[in-house]
Parts: sequence; C-alpha cells; structure tokens
Amino acid sequence: MPPIVTLTTDFGTRDSYVAVMKGVLLSACPDLRIVDLTHDIAPQDVFGAAYFLAEAATWYPEGTIHCAVIDPGVGTTRLPIVVRARNYFFVGPDNGLLTFISKKISIDEARSITNPRFMLPEISATFHGRDIFAPTAACLARGAPMEEAGDRLTALTMLEIPCAKVDENGNLCGVVVHVDRFGNAITNIHRSQVPERKDVTVRIGSESVYGIHETYGDVDPGRSVALFGSADYLEIAIHRGNAADKFGAHRGTRVEIRR
Amino acid sequence: MPPIVTLTTDFGTRDSYVAVMKGVLLSACPDLRIVDLTHDIAPQDVFGAAYFLAEAATWYPEGTIHCAVIDPGVGTTRLPIVVRARNYFFVGPDNGLLTFISKKISIDEARSITNPRFMLPEISATFHGRDIFAPTAACLARGAPMEEAGDRLTALTMLEIPCAKVDENGNLCGVVVHVDRFGNAITNIHRSQVPERKDVTVRIGSESVYGIHETYGDVDPGRSVALFGSADYLEIAIHRGNAADKFGAHRGTRVEIRR
Amino acid sequence: MPPIVTLTTDFGTRDSYVAVMKGVLLSACPDLRIVDLTHDIAPQDVFGAAYFLAEAATWYPEGTIHCAVIDPGVGTTRLPIVVRARNYFFVGPDNGLLTFISKKISIDEARSITNPRFMLPEISATFHGRDIFAPTAACLARGAPMEEAGDRLTALTMLEIPCAKVDENGNLCGVVVHVDRFGNAITNIHRSQVPERKDVTVRIGSESVYGIHETYGDVDPGRSVALFGSADYLEIAIHRGNAADKFGAHRGTRVEIRR
Repeated sequence: MPPIVTLTTDFGTRDSYVAVMKGVLLSACPDLRIVDLTHDIAPQDVFGAAYFLAEAATWYPEGTIHCAVIDPGVGTTRLPIVVRARNYFFVGPDNGLLTFISKKISIDEARSITNPRFMLPEISATFHGRDIFAPTAACLARGAPMEEAGDRLTALTMLEIPCAKVDENGNLCGVVVHVDRFGNAITNIHRSQVPERKDVTVRIGSESVYGIHETYGDVDPGRSVALFGSADYLEIAIHRGNAADKFGAHRGTRVEIRR
Repeated sequence: MPPIVTLTTDFGTRDSYVAVMKGVLLSACPDLRIVDLTHDIAPQDVFGAAYFLAEAATWYPEGTIHCAVIDPGVGTTRLPIVVRARNYFFVGPDNGLLTFISKKISIDEARSITNPRFMLPEISATFHGRDIFAPTAACLARGAPMEEAGDRLTALTMLEIPCAKVDENGNLCGVVVHVDRFGNAITNIHRSQVPERKDVTVRIGSESVYGIHETYGDVDPGRSVALFGSADYLEIAIHRGNAADKFGAHRGTRVEIRR
Repeated sequence: MPPIVTLTTDFGTRDSYVAVMKGVLLSACPDLRIVDLTHDIAPQDVFGAAYFLAEAATWYPEGTIHCAVIDPGVGTTRLPIVVRARNYFFVGPDNGLLTFISKKISIDEARSITNPRFMLPEISATFHGRDIFAPTAACLARGAPMEEAGDRLTALTMLEIPCAKVDENGNLCGVVVHVDRFGNAITNIHRSQVPERKDVTVRIGSESVYGIHETYGDVDPGRSVALFGSADYLEIAIHRGNAADKFGAHRGTRVEIRR
C-alpha cells in the first residue's frame, strides 16, 4: 500500500497553509495518502497538539508518518526533527510536540533534519511546514532512510506536564488537561489510579460530583457524571450537556477525588 | 476500486475522535478510502445528522459504506446497527439517524452488531465510533457479509419528522428543517406540493416574501427570495445576504404558502 | 497515478454541499483522488477565494484539476468555465476567481462549459457545484479533452485588485489583502519592491513598526514585527500574538513603508 502521511497543525483551513503542504507532499510523492488528523489545534498551542498526537497516533498502521506542525518558533534555533517510535515516524519542530506520545511508546531514534535533499531548494524563515516538514515526510514516504536526514539527537525538548498525585490529606489530585467539543473535562487521572469508584466524590473547581459511572447515559439528561473516558482517564461530563461551561473548567482546573 | 467509507459525525476536528476512527479504519483495511462528509453536525443533533445523511448519501457510488456516529446514547441500551439500502451500507447507532434516508430509499436489511469480529477486542462505554462502528465499516470494506454482524432487526428507531400539509384555510403549511451556512432557510415543502408559484405569498414567521423564483440572483442583492433549492424543497434566502438572521428563522420556524 | 481533483469552496462543512460534490466526483470517476483545499472561504467572498487559489494551486503536481466553487451568481448569466494554465486545470464560475493566479501563471486556454456530457442530466438553478463543476472536473479526470467542454473564450472576468505603489512623498503604499488565522496582516507589497529593510518604518493604520525582520521570533513575545512572509509579501505580525486584532487591520487597511 502507498504510505500514509498524517497532518496535525494549528493552521486552520481558512488560509492556504494546509493546502500548500498537501501540494508539496503530492508533488514529491504522488502516490502517498494524506490523512487530515486536525488543523484545529489552537494557534501555537504546543501542549494541546502534543496531547492530541498521543491520543491519535498509535491507532494508525505501522509505518505511518505523522507530520505535526505547530511551530511558534519557526525560523529560530529550534530544530526540525524526525523521530522513529515503534515503527511510526514523527516529523516536526523540536518544541515538545512528542511529550505525551513519548510516555506511551518509547522513542527509538531521533535526528535533526539538515540534509538539503529532505527540504525544498529554498527555505523561508516562516513556513517550515512547506519547506522542511512536508518534504521530509515525502522523502520518508518514498523510502529514504531517516539516517540520511541529519545527525542523531540524544535528547528532545519536552514540556513539563502535570501528574496526578495523592496529597497530604490522602486525596488524589489532578488537573483538567483537555476540554472536548462536548464540554467534557478530561483529566490526567488514570483509571489505574482509582481502585474505589462508588463511595467517592469528584471535586472540580468548587463543584462536587458523586461516584464514578460507566457512561454518560447512566445519569439523567442534564445531570453531571464522572467516568473514565475512552482513553481511560477520568472525565467530568453532563449527560447531553456541557460540563466545562457549567463548571467553568478549562485546562489546568484542579480536580480531586475524595472518599 | 478500493471500497469507500464515508464519515459523518458530531465530533468536530479539535478533538482526536475523528483521527482515531480514521486510524482504526486504515489499520483494519489499509486500502479503503475515507471520505469526510462532515464532522460539524451540532453536538448530539441526531435530527440534523439524519437530514444531512439523506441529502448526501445517495450521490455516492453503489457499495459505499456510510458510517455515521452521532451517539448521545453511547453505552446504553440503544443498538449498534448495520443497514443495507439500495446497495449502500449504513453503520451507526439505532437512534433515528436513518429517518430521512429511509423516506428516499427503502431499507432492504437491518442487523444489530453483536459479532465480536466486527469490533475491537475491548469495548469502551463511551466511544463506539472507535470500538464498534469503524471496525464494522472496515469489516464490510474487506468484504465480510453483513449477515455475520448480528441478528436481523425488523424495526428501526425513527424520529418523528414534520410533514408539510394544507391547513383549514387552504394554505400549505410547513416548517424550516435546516438553516445552511448562507442563512438560507430550507423547509419541508416539496416542489411537487406547490403547483402555483407566481401569485403566492410565502410567510416565514411574521414576514412575507412574494412569489417563488428560480435562483438567488433573480432579485437584487439584499432582497429576500423564495425558491426551490437544489434538493427541490422550498427555501427562503436573501440574495448575497442571510435570511435566517434577518427573519429570525431556525429549525421549526413555521412557513406558509398563501394565495 | 489517478488524477487529483482539489476542492475550494465557501460551503463550509456543516451543510451537505461538499459531501454531495464529492459523491458526484467519485460516482463519475471512481479512482480520482479528492483533496480538500478549503471549504472555509467566507460566504460569497470571491476575492478571498481568488487570493487563496493563487497561493495554493501551483504547489500541486501538473495535471491537477482545481475545482473552485464560490458562486454568488449561480443560475444567472455568469458562465461556467474550464481553464488551462501551465498544465493545471481550473473549473468554476467565471466571476474573477482566477484574478490572482492569472498574474502568476499565464492562462493558455479558456472555454465555457456547455456540453451536456460535462454536466448532470438535470441542472438546478442553485447548485452548479454539483450539477456542472464536479461533473466537468470528473470528465477531465477521466481524460476528456477540454476542447469538448464548449466554446473558446477570449476574455475572463477579472476583479480589480490593488497594487502597491510609490506615492507623491516617496513612500511605498499598499494595503492588507489577507488576515490569516494567526492575525498576521498580509499585504500586497512584494519583497522585490523593498530594497531597504533596516532603516524603514512600516505604518499600518495609525501604528508604526520599525524595521523589517526575518521571522516572528526575531522579536520578543508580544512585540510587533514586519517581515516578508512565505509568499514573499510584507506582513505585519505579533510574535505569539494577533496583529490584526491589535492594529484593527483587515482587508483594505492601508500600509506604508516610510524611510
């Protein structure tokens, strides 16, 4: 099968940036298949993109090339990189985009992209998605070995990400890491950290939700519900409603599980 | 040709849900072709999705697999189903999504999805798009007979949908069923129900539009116009303007044709 | 390789219009490859679409068929056209959509679309994307010669577009032609028009930005910066901020370079 190149960007689709990248990809490797993961990462939100990539990337077939361009430092000293992790390739700027995925699958090899054959002939200072990242993804899709991209790197830039922990009162404390389209507030508290689910109270901001259920429909429409979402992290939702709006929750909002 | 799987969801593209479904599809059937119909159905708007599907589905080649995931009841008793109608397949929850399409093409066969081979090994309570619907669509794309999905169903869940009718005063009365991006208010009044087009008044809310024209440009910019849209239903528009905003029209707004 | 058909529309993706066009394309030519350029052109914004097309189109492989449907005059006297320019095809209404691209690559041949074999059997008055433009694009993808589409045209509709010029005071004066998702205000002032970059002041509205830099990161976060963007036109940005919001800039805002 022709290789798959996925795209994850903060470019939106009002502007031509994504369309240009697709053209560069197809011009360099006409038979590759492009899959749009998202172009709706909030502008310059590296944390959100890193979280997104970790949710999506490993559902793809082995050999998939994930090209992620959220790049507020374009044209400065941050490195363009290509990374291999469990037979997936990741191409993008070295600014922390692989922070979450590197907790799920180990990074086998990382290289800077310096070989001009992995780039367009002219490199702008403001659009490396077009000039470096799409060409590199197309090179990999055509079978070029990543060893040729550039020198091996021994460390990558990583974001500090919050971990859920037990506090001095014995309560498990985490934070909201993502609010989804439905207003579900998804936390960093993993199912494996919560052995007891019935006689607990989930505190989010100044509100309380009692017990942990299985799915949204376990409570009546309009009622709040805590549950472990499809990636096994605790989320707070309102059945057929918007929990984040109701509770004023956003990334970073504190969430506690109390007995 | 490789089979086509279309996606219709209310997931938006900010979150990873669509990207995950695409990964599941391509991992299970690497040569299928994914076509995004929309991910912008309003959250949990089954009526809107059912209307959308009926507008789009039959323009596709025979054999196309339409996977539609608008699923507020995920994880509860609503059934996952696969349906065949005139050589199209539909995969999704049994919650009324096929209400409008079943008025256009007859449903030949409907089955619940219970065969574990049509699902991922583990089934979450909150994301059957990933765990059941994408895997079932990929199974069909690989040629699995729908008979193997599960038991035959003799009835599907259907929404109550409003019909345009003549009232006691002899006026044809309908409602707005969809407002499109341009602010055109599309009704449930079909061209075949309106023999006379010139000497009529179209009432929408408390406003009147005179006559029924052929296209938007038949009136001056800024003027309102009634016409039969591309699916042969009456719509009220403003040439180069937004009729729904001006008339305060939304789904359910009453529309009458008076002589 | 199967032919590529790109889509550029103002249809958004909430409505079924794009999904219908994709179905028509795939039904007529099952092996063509559809690439979404954008569906987020502002409703009926022919200027914005023309600008977008010129940015994106020439990055695609030769033979690509660009289908662009921003069509406020649908159903009136404006012609449906097919155009060949440097081995690209363009299909859409003759309303100025090719204004910017025709400054970059010369138009080799233009024809009206009148041959019924290039259309669906029934032509509505309101949706030529479905009835004429998608079928024509699919015909070209199947190898039909554009000569068969209809008569040759000797002139196309063109928009008046503003040019950057030196004013009576010796200052180079242009306007903002596009504001991108990041709030960067992109002008019609080309790099080749600005030999001196250091000792200049860029005026945008009533604000001043000093000097012209290479990239966003050349200034501190929150500071404004003028630079030549990835298409070599002057843009005014704020590093990790939104310049258009801050400066109240929009399409048409005057920009001057003063020494």
